[in-house]
Amino acid sequence: MSGAREPFFASRWVQSPAHVSEDGGGLPAGFRAAAAAAGIKPDGAVDLGLLVCDAEDAVSAARYTRSGVLAAPVLVCRDETAPGALRAVIANSGNANAATGPEGMRAARAMQATAARALGVEPDTVAVASTGVIGVPLALGGLEDAVAAATAALAPAGDEAFNEAILTTDAFHKRASLQVQLPSGSVRLSAQAKGAGMIEPAFATMLCFVQTDAALAPETADLLLSVCVKRSFARISVDGQLSTNDTVILMSSGESGVQVAPESEDELRLGEALDALLRMLAILIVRDGEGSRRIGRIVVRGGSDEVVERCARAIANSPLVKTALHGADPNWGRIAQSAGAALPGLAPLALDIAIEGITVCAGGVAVPYDLEALNAAAASPEIEYEVGLPGCGCVTEVLFSDLGHEYVTINAEYTT
Amino acid sequence: MSGAREPFFASRWVQSPAHVSEDGGGLPAGFRAAAAAAGIKPDGAVDLGLLVCDAEDAVSAARYTRSGVLAAPVLVCRDETAPGALRAVIANSGNANAATGPEGMRAARAMQATAARALGVEPDTVAVASTGVIGVPLALGGLEDAVAAATAALAPAGDEAFNEAILTTDAFHKRASLQVQLPSGSVRLSAQAKGAGMIEPAFATMLCFVQTDAALAPETADLLLSVCVKRSFARISVDGQLSTNDTVILMSSGESGVQVAPESEDELRLGEALDALLRMLAILIVRDGEGSRRIGRIVVRGGSDEVVERCARAIANSPLVKTALHGADPNWGRIAQSAGAALPGLAPLALDIAIEGITVCAGGVAVPYDLEALNAAAASPEIEYEVGLPGCGCVTEVLFSDLGHEYVTINAEYTT
Repeated sequence: MSGAREPFFASRWVQSPAHVSEDGGGLPAGFRAAAAAAGIKPDGAVDLGLLVCDAEDAVSAARYTRSGVLAAPVLVCRDETAPGALRAVIANSGNANAATGPEGMRAARAMQATAARALGVEPDTVAVASTGVIGVPLALGGLEDAVAAATAALAPAGDEAFNEAILTTDAFHKRASLQVQLPSGSVRLSAQAKGAGMIEPAFATMLCFVQTDAALAPETADLLLSVCVKRSFARISVDGQLSTNDTVILMSSGESGVQVAPESEDELRLGEALDALLRMLAILIVRDGEGSRRIGRIVVRGGSDEVVERCARAIANSPLVKTALHGADPNWGRIAQSAGAALPGLAPLALDIAIEGITVCAGGVAVPYDLEALNAAAASPEIEYEVGLPGCGCVTEVLFSDLGHEYVTINAEYTT
Repeated sequence: MSGAREPFFASRWVQSPAHVSEDGGGLPAGFRAAAAAAGIKPDGAVDLGLLVCDAEDAVSAARYTRSGVLAAPVLVCRDETAPGALRAVIANSGNANAATGPEGMRAARAMQATAARALGVEPDTVAVASTGVIGVPLALGGLEDAVAAATAALAPAGDEAFNEAILTTDAFHKRASLQVQLPSGSVRLSAQAKGAGMIEPAFATMLCFVQTDAALAPETADLLLSVCVKRSFARISVDGQLSTNDTVILMSSGESGVQVAPESEDELRLGEALDALLRMLAILIVRDGEGSRRIGRIVVRGGSDEVVERCARAIANSPLVKTALHGADPNWGRIAQSAGAALPGLAPLALDIAIEGITVCAGGVAVPYDLEALNAAAASPEIEYEVGLPGCGCVTEVLFSDLGHEYVTINAEYTT
């Protein structure tokens, strides 16, 4: 398991704002994290992460999956924590604690209570997150010892261990530590995410934890998270599969002393930094899409928000488009087919299609193009597809991974 | 390319009615077919099929894809043929003639006109069907010679050659010749189908041609086809991908002399035979689902038609469910996840799940089960999943193929 690739901002689809820079790593002032092995993963790997904000007046915001099958930890977070006032996270990998009924609720509450006791905070300020297999009781025999070990190991540089503890099929870490220069002063921003399969988040990714030492009101934290999640985790798909456990939590310690007031230039700048951070993490999740070797971005323009959204999702989730992306095959007929399938009854559809800026179809009809240039473009690690539908004024994008043998191997040949 | 496997009715999900039996092959009285190579497939394989009904008062019914991107042959069939009076089919593989604009329309009309001239029938009684790559102009340099060769070879036993001419990535033929004992006499029923990928037909499969010598009014043909398509091709999915070219055509020569009157016992019995025929062909298409080694049937019960349909489609098209099916992994957590994703906002969902009759989840909660028995059941060639949602009175099914390495290889590693 390697650390996050350097530099963190490594996609043409994310602009790193000029006032944002990577720093040496670690959590912002006021945060500590650690990890331990609780015996949930059968191989004895680190599978329990603990994150705490030492500021008593910590501020938070959160978004959860909108699945109809909600995991117990999501239900506990949603219904049994103080909105806007989370101070800690206890997270495990190896078991999603989903479809586990009252026993699962008891297990999630036990995680919350154990962490609260060890950290000396109120239970309703502790968020619980789980990821792993669905429908298996969560065995908590190792919980007390692991929480005690993690509590003793809590450190400002514990973000790497914490990230390690929440990974499942991930091939690499997804985290960053950023310095953000606001008009009123310098703040720090860090995040740890996991996710590679079962990814088409509705409001959030699988798991993502974000920390800052900027001082934010709960309303500001909520607004910033809401806007940035819509532009990042809500715009990606690995396999079109909304999870039972998606959770994203932003926590602020305020320890930088830099106040970020509503509708201020500080808020705008911090929002830009959070936007770039979450967009890049979202792209890393797509890039880690269980065996992905190439990722795509579909941009659809047209006259209706609903129609461009439907068309973009259909293309991003088409196994034919995804296998062609994997094979570096600029097979735009599959883009046309997906768009047509998503928009029944509109034939003949005056569809424009371009791949990496090369127009291949205009007004629904194939046009001559330089096949050699197209083939070369289709072999890049990041492929951009553009689709134009009739009408104008609406545009959307979806970032998506390819579909290759590794995905099949991971999901068919190993029991998860 | 082997012939259809024997016996034709070889799935526990299709009952072959007692009055239906396989016969020695070939087309019903009044039909002839043949095939030739028109140079559309680059390897010189047979790629052009011709089918004709010699009865001047032939009766027909047809269903076409509802894609927003309709192929030229579908537009010609829909808009430029006499409804209910088709007498012939010209079909090619190797090129879908889709997204080809006015040039594609000219090519489809040229196919229609050439076949009409050779067969001595009116152009508006000739259906055109194409399957293969999208967005490439259809080269018709070999059309005249191939149609002449096929016309000279037309024979009552030409259904095998005709089936061969319409295959693309299919691993085996999908055809049958049946004897149907009606109260008023014996009639014959035959069909040739193709389809393996890009399969989630809305009204029809990729291509399917059905012939009978029963005497039907056009309204009866339309009614029977409509009902049977809804229970067969409209209930399958290989990869969730509605095609640009899906076409199913039923033609009746009437040459048996057996009149099938509306609302008669004859109509009921013929309907049962057609139902079994199309259901079995639909299952063969799923079984041929580009590298499929196992197929599934998801049955969803609940209180709303819209909800059970949404849930069943989500499960059938989930790459996580499909890879688990491929790997003989009874991973029912993925069923729960798909159902939850399809039904946002309903948590907690009182979901029941059974695999091959073994209940694994009741009321949304995992229940104890015999893992050894479940694992053994999951290794069968046909796996049945049942999902119960709150409410009752509504039920639906979707038949679906798995997702394995062959699908990736076929769709990623070869340019289609």
